[in-house]
Amino acid sequence: MSPTRNAGYPEPGKTTVYDTTRSIDLDTVPLNGGVLLKVTYLSIDPYMRNKMGAPQEGKWAAPQFTLGQPLDNFGLGRVIRSDDSNFKPGDYVYGFLKFEEYVVTSSAGLEKLDNQAHIPWSAYLSAAGMPGQTAYFGYKEFVKAKKGQTIWITTGAGAVGSILIQLAKRDGLRVIGSAGSEEKVAFMKEIGADVAFNYKTTNIDDLLEKEGPIDIYWDHVGRESLDIALGHINKYGRIIIAGAISGYNFGHTYAYQNLFNIDQRSLTVTGFNVTDPELAEHWGEAFAREVPVLIARGDLKHREEKTPFELAGDALVRVLKGQNTGKSILVVSESG
Amino acid sequence: MSPTRNAGYPEPGKTTVYDTTRSIDLDTVPLNGGVLLKVTYLSIDPYMRNKMGAPQEGKWAAPQFTLGQPLDNFGLGRVIRSDDSNFKPGDYVYGFLKFEEYVVTSSAGLEKLDNQAHIPWSAYLSAAGMPGQTAYFGYKEFVKAKKGQTIWITTGAGAVGSILIQLAKRDGLRVIGSAGSEEKVAFMKEIGADVAFNYKTTNIDDLLEKEGPIDIYWDHVGRESLDIALGHINKYGRIIIAGAISGYNFGHTYAYQNLFNIDQRSLTVTGFNVTDPELAEHWGEAFAREVPVLIARGDLKHREEKTPFELAGDALVRVLKGQNTGKSILVVSESG
Repeated sequence: MSPTRNAGYPEPGKTTVYDTTRSIDLDTVPLNGGVLLKVTYLSIDPYMRNKMGAPQEGKWAAPQFTLGQPLDNFGLGRVIRSDDSNFKPGDYVYGFLKFEEYVVTSSAGLEKLDNQAHIPWSAYLSAAGMPGQTAYFGYKEFVKAKKGQTIWITTGAGAVGSILIQLAKRDGLRVIGSAGSEEKVAFMKEIGADVAFNYKTTNIDDLLEKEGPIDIYWDHVGRESLDIALGHINKYGRIIIAGAISGYNFGHTYAYQNLFNIDQRSLTVTGFNVTDPELAEHWGEAFAREVPVLIARGDLKHREEKTPFELAGDALVRVLKGQNTGKSILVVSESG
Repeated sequence: MSPTRNAGYPEPGKTTVYDTTRSIDLDTVPLNGGVLLKVTYLSIDPYMRNKMGAPQEGKWAAPQFTLGQPLDNFGLGRVIRSDDSNFKPGDYVYGFLKFEEYVVTSSAGLEKLDNQAHIPWSAYLSAAGMPGQTAYFGYKEFVKAKKGQTIWITTGAGAVGSILIQLAKRDGLRVIGSAGSEEKVAFMKEIGADVAFNYKTTNIDDLLEKEGPIDIYWDHVGRESLDIALGHINKYGRIIIAGAISGYNFGHTYAYQNLFNIDQRSLTVTGFNVTDPELAEHWGEAFAREVPVLIARGDLKHREEKTPFELAGDALVRVLKGQNTGKSILVVSESG
């Protein structure tokens, strides 16, 4: 059921390669009803590691990258040519793109951005894009915050976690944030965390004994972190699982001690993916209406770490090791 | 966090003792505002094992039985004397009672039964009582059944599981039931399970490969069973945890392989206890209105296994080993 995955981090230049051998004729390449984009920014996210495992078979197989083919992920670009009358040259679009300087793609999944709030385009890969939606959709749908309750947010300085901290503080929650460096701890405090700690130098059991118990745990980590949370969560607590970064690298088998508390303490544990259709149905419009405006006003802070396209492999390793400060974004072309 | 518990089964005559040394004067014993009951039936349930662990300390300590004192659990009795004008001699009551032939107890937690449906009194410890409520409350609140979906119900021949099978079939679900003997498999089929299997003689992975995937898993078992369910459940599946009988006896630490699917498949895992106040608020009236009538009509079948009071220790071991056929009920006095 649970295939053995290649353990460890990707190796830039070896398992992830910047390939300069391909070319494209921008004037003549056939569009087949789609569009030609000049790519501006591409997103680097931890879940991409999960598409780099051993090939899986059968009905439970997770989508995998294809060996020898470009990676893909959410990105932004400017339309250069178009076979679809809904998209005109000059339009700025968001979509799931191949990691290439110029992309020919179907227009089916593309979203045209009007950016009425006049925020930097790259924010649409960050607080105004998928990570912001992950935080906002999951927070609204599952956290069911009650003022004064305590939430522990993991990877609290990251693209999703930092938005969560701010949403939780706006609702009057007491926020405990965790991350892997002193610099990230400082950032979590700056954006409002009541308690912020470096999980690499902190005994988390002791910390939660003092600062807990918690009512809500937002998990991006899995394994030991999830198990500790299960030990320090109040009756009727809620656990939201939006990632399992420790498992992406090191496998998902783990000897949990505290799972029994799901029953014992009447907990709810919810996993979700930002692409689950119900979430966008429930919260998509509210997100598009509220979040870019909050960003423009400075009421929702976020950080970006931009990396040149040719260092994509290094950027991915940084994200998987938690070394990035702010949302990791590849700059393919600033002048899209 | 997770204390080591004494492993293994209780030993009748040694760790559970039928004590005949106590006596009571029915005419003069002071009631202190409460009532004197002649106890008729007492319930034996798996969760009682969980109150027989090593003493725990601190804020997470689960309630434990006190060494040298009577066990307690849900039971029935007839009022003999009363200091409370709401309870009269002759009233039949349900409550949380000490395991004694005669009990002096506060009337605060007692419920007077009128039994308008004229079902056997003992049913109020079974389908019309706590096990029935566990099935009904949990089913209505968390299963959110959609016709045609597949549910796997563990301990499907038990007091809770057998009611669940029948509720699920009434809603048009496809039901897979599991239990630990051929006799129980036959009973599950008799009450409507589409697929019924003996987990002791079945490769569950293979069975679910053929009969699954499942949409809903109702867990009374934990550990390997829960992990297998996590491997065979569809996207957006629901897992309801209402017990963890394998953990009661053998500890709760287990190396889960498939927990990652909570996130990967957008699952919801909910633990609950029948005593959680919201459940009775939502479903208590509907249960009292519907279930005794369904039982009286024969539309909701249940089985009871009655044991004389002096063999209480053996009855508990039978329940923990899954040897009982039907709800385990101690007969203290049929003529209450």
